[in-house]
Amino acid sequence: MKPYALSQALKNVRATTPLVHCITNYVTVNDCANALLACGGSPIMSDEPKDVPDIQAICGGLVLNIGTLNELTIEGMFAAGERARDLGHPIVLDPVGAGASALRTDTAAELLNAVGAQVIRANMSEVKALAGAAAATRGVDVNPDDAVTEENLQASAEFVKQVAAKTGAIVAVTGAIDIVADAERAFAIRNGAPIMGKITGAGCMLTCVTAAYAVANPDMMLEAVVAAVAGMGAAGEMALARMQPVDGNASFRTYLIDALYNINGEALEAIARVEEL
Amino acid sequence: MKPYALSQALKNVRATTPLVHCITNYVTVNDCANALLACGGSPIMSDEPKDVPDIQAICGGLVLNIGTLNELTIEGMFAAGERARDLGHPIVLDPVGAGASALRTDTAAELLNAVGAQVIRANMSEVKALAGAAAATRGVDVNPDDAVTEENLQASAEFVKQVAAKTGAIVAVTGAIDIVADAERAFAIRNGAPIMGKITGAGCMLTCVTAAYAVANPDMMLEAVVAAVAGMGAAGEMALARMQPVDGNASFRTYLIDALYNINGEALEAIARVEEL
Amino acid sequence: MKPYALSQALKNVRATTPLVHCITNYVTVNDCANALLACGGSPIMSDEPKDVPDIQAICGGLVLNIGTLNELTIEGMFAAGERARDLGHPIVLDPVGAGASALRTDTAAELLNAVGAQVIRANMSEVKALAGAAAATRGVDVNPDDAVTEENLQASAEFVKQVAAKTGAIVAVTGAIDIVADAERAFAIRNGAPIMGKITGAGCMLTCVTAAYAVANPDMMLEAVVAAVAGMGAAGEMALARMQPVDGNASFRTYLIDALYNINGEALEAIARVEEL
Repeated sequence: MKPYALSQALKNVRATTPLVHCITNYVTVNDCANALLACGGSPIMSDEPKDVPDIQAICGGLVLNIGTLNELTIEGMFAAGERARDLGHPIVLDPVGAGASALRTDTAAELLNAVGAQVIRANMSEVKALAGAAAATRGVDVNPDDAVTEENLQASAEFVKQVAAKTGAIVAVTGAIDIVADAERAFAIRNGAPIMGKITGAGCMLTCVTAAYAVANPDMMLEAVVAAVAGMGAAGEMALARMQPVDGNASFRTYLIDALYNINGEALEAIARVEEL
Repeated sequence: MKPYALSQALKNVRATTPLVHCITNYVTVNDCANALLACGGSPIMSDEPKDVPDIQAICGGLVLNIGTLNELTIEGMFAAGERARDLGHPIVLDPVGAGASALRTDTAAELLNAVGAQVIRANMSEVKALAGAAAATRGVDVNPDDAVTEENLQASAEFVKQVAAKTGAIVAVTGAIDIVADAERAFAIRNGAPIMGKITGAGCMLTCVTAAYAVANPDMMLEAVVAAVAGMGAAGEMALARMQPVDGNASFRTYLIDALYNINGEALEAIARVEEL
Repeated sequence: MKPYALSQALKNVRATTPLVHCITNYVTVNDCANALLACGGSPIMSDEPKDVPDIQAICGGLVLNIGTLNELTIEGMFAAGERARDLGHPIVLDPVGAGASALRTDTAAELLNAVGAQVIRANMSEVKALAGAAAATRGVDVNPDDAVTEENLQASAEFVKQVAAKTGAIVAVTGAIDIVADAERAFAIRNGAPIMGKITGAGCMLTCVTAAYAVANPDMMLEAVVAAVAGMGAAGEMALARMQPVDGNASFRTYLIDALYNINGEALEAIARVEEL
């Protein structure tokens, strides 16, 4: 990765205020909107099938998060996805709970087949489920361990690169160690804090922030996704550093979004621990 | 405006705890509920068409916010609006995204035609879209600049008064300078802080708070809407004054609702910068 | 109640991380998720009828909260409830607004009839409405005062025990004084703070936390519900103790969830004021 690619990606978000259309779950939607604003983007939420084509047309990109999917919002996701695809807007897919229910696994796979995705942001179990669903229809055979560890890092990165190759998407798998890869290159990111798993929405927020980074950095999208992931991890570390003994996960949530708001390119470069694999 | 009208309006909210039925978007609904509680009102959310007539009947007023409208909630908005109209309860319309999609523009205009509104709370672009939609069916022709500035303030106020005259509503247009007007009088309000645009929901919260003020002040509704708008701006200034360097938009959101909770009539009168135009 | 039953119940939640499937209103859903994480549980939200059977199957229990019910989520509640019942998973019913609309009263009663509930968590007015609905179909006749006071405490407890006997559920009625009862025993809990009524969601959060306690304590469910209720009240007192003059209800909300996160068995035992009636 070129020197200062991360800070350049961040700077491009702040300079262009990318407008991101989000179809996302109602659990974390408020945090997603505030995280998008914090990072320098701007959110619009709309899931009604009759509304989404117009809304997508005025935006730069699309988030499809299936966290609380229902039959109406699924229809909205396909309609918005088709519009984004036709307009050449980046689509970021967050297959929340793929593998936990047939509807989620199928919907994520069908969205991917129908409208594609420039970025998939998920945890390893969801990526596995998504790859497995593809497997059933495309003959793929994957079975890596779920959690990325130092021991299975190279094998995990190879798997993520394979998923990227098959889907055509940049794949960002987040966990204790994050992996971001396209078909050619893979990066490990060692930022963040365990307490990020004790709030709802860290993943959903990252998905939306990633969309802003993808929209603002069309010519360096892989680096931009790395910057978004490393930036969320760095924000988690900054938030953790603010924690007082009486603080808990609710204060942490506030501090996390605050850190997304305050982090600048210099801090991002200093805190990010990115390794090309 | 009579001396102490603002503090009287606030006092009337706190004294009567107006119960406000909100059909509002799922992005900012939690902040809307807490903002209503903070200002001295009480929220009930319900959008199911079969549920809203009963709920509206036990409430004092209605918020119709189309921020994440869908075919079911649109049906609920009409049903609730008809009940509110028949009961003589104030309706506050927030045409979120009018102009951004045909569905939003049309729904806002149709709600206005079908059930009317005592107050419209929006930004200038939305008000323009709403007026333009009305134009198509009512022959209105308007085209002011979008942002209210010191330079176009008088012209903007005239436009807002025209919209008020045509709709029969008090119109509250918020931005760097806010304008509140009915057909006869217009007020400019110069409160608030730019960071209010860096959180989601400042407008939605104001819409709900405005409904509480309208319900509690039937005999001085214009002054009450001015009080609600100035009060939100004052709360924004109080919240800004609490900001520390590590704070960002998430802390600001918390401080804003806290300020709505703590502001009293004396502080409101001291901070409000209201000018009759 | 056995010594240290409260802290044992809390310890069992933290040791087992109960996964709770929540169908709950979109107003407070984010706070519900963070409260579940704070107490030591883990949330999954899903309301689509086609999704809920799979999701319930991987969870330990179910929350049915009718706060923003609509025709689709009602269908989802029945589908999820049937699955939970068939799997022997605890169901916690929160009949939000029962008595405020016919749809809410009927839906709560029909859910209770169709799938039952191991716990009902509500305020006294909702419990009365629920009992009255049952009355119409089961000949029950109840009419206690709505608010539990020191004066009507014994009569209120008798009423709650009767509702518990008729529904087969543990009934947790929260207010200035909380009552938790099954058909045989009743407990009064004198914890909490009035400001808990100035945020939205204190009741909804308690409902979800109660589900985590019920799942983690199948052999001492009554004590576990008492622990959840006393724990929420204790957290409210801990949060109140953090309040500064500039803080309002938004900060209190953050502090409340923080306290749920930080409270341990020792603090719970020290703060809880539980009396067997």
